[in-house]
Amino acid sequence: MTEKIALTPKTHTAPPAKFSHGVKKGNILQVAGQVGFLPATEGRPPTPAGPTLRAQTLQTLANVKAILEEGGATWDDVMMIRVYLTDVDHFAEMNAIYNEYFEEHLTAAPAARTTVYVGLPAGLLIEIDALAVLDA
Amino acid sequence: MTEKIALTPKTHTAPPAKFSHGVKKGNILQVAGQVGFLPATEGRPPTPAGPTLRAQTLQTLANVKAILEEGGATWDDVMMIRVYLTDVDHFAEMNAIYNEYFEEHLTAAPAARTTVYVGLPAGLLIEIDALAVLDA
Amino acid sequence: MTEKIALTPKTHTAPPAKFSHGVKKGNILQVAGQVGFLPATEGRPPTPAGPTLRAQTLQTLANVKAILEEGGATWDDVMMIRVYLTDVDHFAEMNAIYNEYFEEHLTAAPAARTTVYVGLPAGLLIEIDALAVLDA
Repeated sequence: MTEKIALTPKTHTAPPAKFSHGVKKGNILQVAGQVGFLPATEGRPPTPAGPTLRAQTLQTLANVKAILEEGGATWDDVMMIRVYLTDVDHFAEMNAIYNEYFEEHLTAAPAARTTVYVGLPAGLLIEIDALAVLDA
Repeated sequence: MTEKIALTPKTHTAPPAKFSHGVKKGNILQVAGQVGFLPATEGRPPTPAGPTLRAQTLQTLANVKAILEEGGATWDDVMMIRVYLTDVDHFAEMNAIYNEYFEEHLTAAPAARTTVYVGLPAGLLIEIDALAVLDA
Repeated sequence: MTEKIALTPKTHTAPPAKFSHGVKKGNILQVAGQVGFLPATEGRPPTPAGPTLRAQTLQTLANVKAILEEGGATWDDVMMIRVYLTDVDHFAEMNAIYNEYFEEHLTAAPAARTTVYVGLPAGLLIEIDALAVLDA
C-alpha cells in the first residue's frame, strides 16, 4: 500500500474545485497547473501578480516550487514542465525569465518542457504544471 | 520485463487511430484523452452525449472511469487529471459538475489538475485524460 | 540515489531555453515537446521540414524517436503521446500518417494519446511529446 498525499502549501489559495495543488504517491509527485496568484490573504479573492509577464511567470514558478517543497522535492527532481502561454509573442520573454530563474534554482539536468498557446481565464498570461520523480 | 497492456473497455468506440484508450505498465496507468461519446453501438458512428456541458462532462468522466477499472484502478489512484475545455465561460459550470461527481467517486486525496482552453473537433465541449499510479 | 540524465541527440538543434530534449530518471523517460525541425546544421537556424503536414509530422516523430533511443527506449515503451495540432482540419490526415508510421515502428500495444488544437509558433503545424516507462 502506497499512500497518495495531497500537497497544500499554506501560501496557496484554495483550489476552485475538488483537486489538489499537488499530490505525491511513492516517488511520483505531480504539481497541478499553477498560475501567478499572490500568496493567499484572508478575505481577498485570488489575485494574480502583475500585470507584467515577468511578475506572473516568477510568481507561477514560486507557486510550483512551494508545492515541490511541500512534497520534499526540489526543481532538480522535475522531469517535465508544461508551460501554457496565451500569446506566441510572449515566447522569447518567457524563455529569458525561465533561463534566468533556472540558472539560480537548478543544479541537475534541466527538465523536459512543452510550451503551447492556449486560452486562460481573463488576466492570466501563463500557467505551469510539473511532474517530478523523486529519488527511489 | 514489465508488460505494457492496452486497456479497452467494451463500451468504448474504436479509437480513430493507432492508439490505446489506456495503457498500463507496472504501476503506471495512463488514460488517453476521453470525450463524451456514448457507449458504442454497432453501426452507429461515435456520438457525443449532450448537447449540454453537463451531459458531456459526466459521460467523459464515465469513459475515463471505465478505462481505470479495466486496469484495476479507481479514481483514488489518479494523480493528474487534464481538462480541456473549449470555452472559458464553461469553467464555473464544469467545476460544479466536477465537484459533485468527485464528492461521490473519491475517498482519497483529490488528483492534481490542469485546465486549459483549446480547440476540439466540432460538437465536443470537453476532453479529459488522466495519469494514475497504482499501489506498488 | 537515482540520477536524472539529460537526453540530447546529436541531430537536435539546441533548445531555445534551459530545458532538455528528454530526461530519464530510473525507469521514467520524458520527451520534451518536439516539432518538425530538420537535423541541426552548423550556422543554420532551426528549420522545419515541410511545408506539408506529412513532412512535419514524420520529422517530428523521428525527433521523438531519436530522444527515446538516446535513453535506451523504443516506441514500444511509450505510454502517452500528446499531439498538438493547430488546425482541426488536420486531424484525419495526421491520423493517417500516424497509423502508417506506427504500423512500421510498433510491436507492443499502442500508447495512449491526447490530441488538442492550440497555437504554435509561426510555420509549425504539429508538436508532439511523449512519456515512456522502461522495463524495470
